Amino acid sequence: MKDQTVSDVTNIVLQHVDNTWGEARDRLFDLLRIPSISTQKSHKEDCRKAARWLSQQLEELGFSASLREVEWAEPGHPMVVAHDNDLSKKQADKQTHVLFYGHYDVQPTDPDHLWDTNPFEPCVKTDSTGRQVIVARGASDDKGQVMTFIEACRAWKAVHGSLPVAVSVLLEGEEESGGENLLPFLKAHADELKADIALICDTAMPDRTTPAITASLRGTVAEEIELIAASHDLHSGMYGNAAANPAFLLCKLLSGLRDENGRVTLPNFYDGIIEPNAETRAQWKELFTDDAALLGEVGLSVAAGEKGYSAVEQTWCRPSFEVNGISGGYQDEGFKTVIPARASAKISFRLVPGQDPLKIRDSFRAYIRNALPEDVEVKFTPHGASAGFAVSKESPFLPAALGALSTEWGKKAVMAGCGGSIPVAEEVRAALEMDALMIGFAQADDRIHSPNEQYGFDSFYHGIRSWVRILAALAR
Amino acid sequence: MKDQTVSDVTNIVLQHVDNTWGEARDRLFDLLRIPSISTQKSHKEDCRKAARWLSQQLEELGFSASLREVEWAEPGHPMVVAHDNDLSKKQADKQTHVLFYGHYDVQPTDPDHLWDTNPFEPCVKTDSTGRQVIVARGASDDKGQVMTFIEACRAWKAVHGSLPVAVSVLLEGEEESGGENLLPFLKAHADELKADIALICDTAMPDRTTPAITASLRGTVAEEIELIAASHDLHSGMYGNAAANPAFLLCKLLSGLRDENGRVTLPNFYDGIIEPNAETRAQWKELFTDDAALLGEVGLSVAAGEKGYSAVEQTWCRPSFEVNGISGGYQDEGFKTVIPARASAKISFRLVPGQDPLKIRDSFRAYIRNALPEDVEVKFTPHGASAGFAVSKESPFLPAALGALSTEWGKKAVMAGCGGSIPVAEEVRAALEMDALMIGFAQADDRIHSPNEQYGFDSFYHGIRSWVRILAALAR
Repeated sequence: MKDQTVSDVTNIVLQHVDNTWGEARDRLFDLLRIPSISTQKSHKEDCRKAARWLSQQLEELGFSASLREVEWAEPGHPMVVAHDNDLSKKQADKQTHVLFYGHYDVQPTDPDHLWDTNPFEPCVKTDSTGRQVIVARGASDDKGQVMTFIEACRAWKAVHGSLPVAVSVLLEGEEESGGENLLPFLKAHADELKADIALICDTAMPDRTTPAITASLRGTVAEEIELIAASHDLHSGMYGNAAANPAFLLCKLLSGLRDENGRVTLPNFYDGIIEPNAETRAQWKELFTDDAALLGEVGLSVAAGEKGYSAVEQTWCRPSFEVNGISGGYQDEGFKTVIPARASAKISFRLVPGQDPLKIRDSFRAYIRNALPEDVEVKFTPHGASAGFAVSKESPFLPAALGALSTEWGKKAVMAGCGGSIPVAEEVRAALEMDALMIGFAQADDRIHSPNEQYGFDSFYHGIRSWVRILAALAR
Repeated sequence: MKDQTVSDVTNIVLQHVDNTWGEARDRLFDLLRIPSISTQKSHKEDCRKAARWLSQQLEELGFSASLREVEWAEPGHPMVVAHDNDLSKKQADKQTHVLFYGHYDVQPTDPDHLWDTNPFEPCVKTDSTGRQVIVARGASDDKGQVMTFIEACRAWKAVHGSLPVAVSVLLEGEEESGGENLLPFLKAHADELKADIALICDTAMPDRTTPAITASLRGTVAEEIELIAASHDLHSGMYGNAAANPAFLLCKLLSGLRDENGRVTLPNFYDGIIEPNAETRAQWKELFTDDAALLGEVGLSVAAGEKGYSAVEQTWCRPSFEVNGISGGYQDEGFKTVIPARASAKISFRLVPGQDPLKIRDSFRAYIRNALPEDVEVKFTPHGASAGFAVSKESPFLPAALGALSTEWGKKAVMAGCGGSIPVAEEVRAALEMDALMIGFAQADDRIHSPNEQYGFDSFYHGIRSWVRILAALAR
């Protein structure tokens, strides 16, 4: 009887979502028009504009919302913090309290010439299968995902005047630029932000139709390395052979970080990692029957990394070393016979639970320093370090959320892995001592961080409806 | 008696050089103001302007000068060809006929922020030793050197109304951008351009006070390589490990081209190379007593290349592999966790006499293709190939020119090597079947191809006077 009531109450909200879907999409477009690139100083004011826009939206829904300055580290884009106005009452009633997390900042847009449309003028495209998608920087990562939750709250408020659980919202503006202010912010406001469970919406579904709660994430150690040799660029005829060449040396040092089996060569790198069990591997194998199932949509076919692991295992449960950018010498039109005076690379390790990011950073730096020949100096610049994360399988909210997702999508929701880093999951645990459910509706072909980023109408629509159901399911 | 006469005749010319030195410098400044960067399309008209300026100078001296279009290959900057007006008469009299070669094009100026002054607004600086230098792109390579010869001709003409030998001049505009039109041009105009000896002014002196004729040059195989994997840049979290990473792969492939002893690993790479004999090694050891003597002025101290060879040997008589530029992924401010879809490098081999540039290009491409994993494509773009060169030691003009240089500089002129590539030397031999003397007055610290390129007053002044003496010495 109670279930029937809950279901009826929820169904009216879902109906409202269906009836007002066009308006929700228009609001997302407004947010996507703000070029909130957090890593570029020229967009500092745009980041604040996006924060203000979201704060205002939440105020309109009956949240008490504000921008909070963060000054522990650069770049210092404000946090948006909002609490539903009936939070105190609901807490007094011992109702479930959730903290929703998303981020309003986006990646840079380069290479710009590969965008078919203006990255900050969202538009709708229809793909060859008839699927409609919203194209814009941030459409999927993470503005579209953030708005699924806000629109779900809006629908509950519009229909019933209140939410089924107590809700707090935390929106970050530095997720794409190191996010160094998040942990100190969480620690400084632990009393205010601590809830029963965190809901993080920044992940993808394993395929078009299977909803998922992500059970593990990889952490990241990101580092910039610069090698410096001669006092200036040299003529490669006059000095070639005899002068140390930082561009060649950088190639040599970086290539030494993976062996012929694709394994990272740093000492003790793999210590403490737990292998997935046979059941998990089988479940993943069902989602991705071969490597091409994961890689095909980006034009690849075979797992290029650590031998003995499938593509999905390589990304979901195995650590990695990658060169994210490399630069040195003459890179323009034509040819210039120089020996560069310096060369640099942006590199990163993706880490799984059990690996210590700071030890791995030290180990990387030691490897480089030990291998450095005479006449060559090195400079390191850290760009963030976060541990991998695994969701506690004992969380009481896990089966409720899985059930709500299964109902919305008409298909059993799975516990998936994710190769990306969402440091907030680990940081929420560290600072607030609470668990986090990572639930997202992005797709692998959303081209996040790339030109022509997109978010499907299906992701946005079922995303909103999923949160409508999850909020109901989490109520005590 | 005859020697005395020759000497007197020459001395008056040298006196004229001394009296008009300021005007010569002003004329060089005019040429340096023209930004004739041959590899950049935006400077096409500037290249033509430099060619016209030189042609006009030679006309004023009594040469019949013209611009010749070249259309075999890009970029197609015109040749300047000039013949002294009494060429036919001198040829009928069986007088020595020399073909002077230089180039009017210059290297790009990047990185621009490292220039202390505008690269195309020449100025004079005084270094800590009191040595005065002209600072500008092309000051040394090769506009300053070209003008030493033209000013020597001007002085002869001003004093005596004629030159002591028959002179033709060929000035190229594509030396810094592949120079692919030179060989076909020489072949097409072989009858017009063939002389008794070519004089090439594009080399450096071994130190501040020792004049030299360069006896050997290294050739070059220059190549651009691009690796292409995924259809677009990927999120390194979602795909890192499983997706082929062209930036990492490029590092791995390029680093494999030198072994732990610094030797190039391509099969048969060193076949056919003649080692310098003990006498030559001793002579070079005297010029450069240790590696720091060559490398110290660019902030280095030890020979970084092939083990068992000194720095001067590594550059003058041993072939090399260098990474001249490398580029891939995110290179701007901050960090971006992408796996690049493509990465590219500009690489070159410096070759010594005995090595076949086309075989080495093929061998390089085969090495890359054989090592390429699945999912990765490669594109090659050639940027010129030229063989190494060694001057024939039997040339009758060699002792005459060495003597003239020794007299001007008050120090015995030496036969030196040079690590750079001057394809014209080999091409003059191939197309015109004549020998070439490479005589230049640049210094190793002239920063050619780099910011703040310079040419010493001493180089320019004694350079002009050296040619005054050499022209006299080459007369029959």
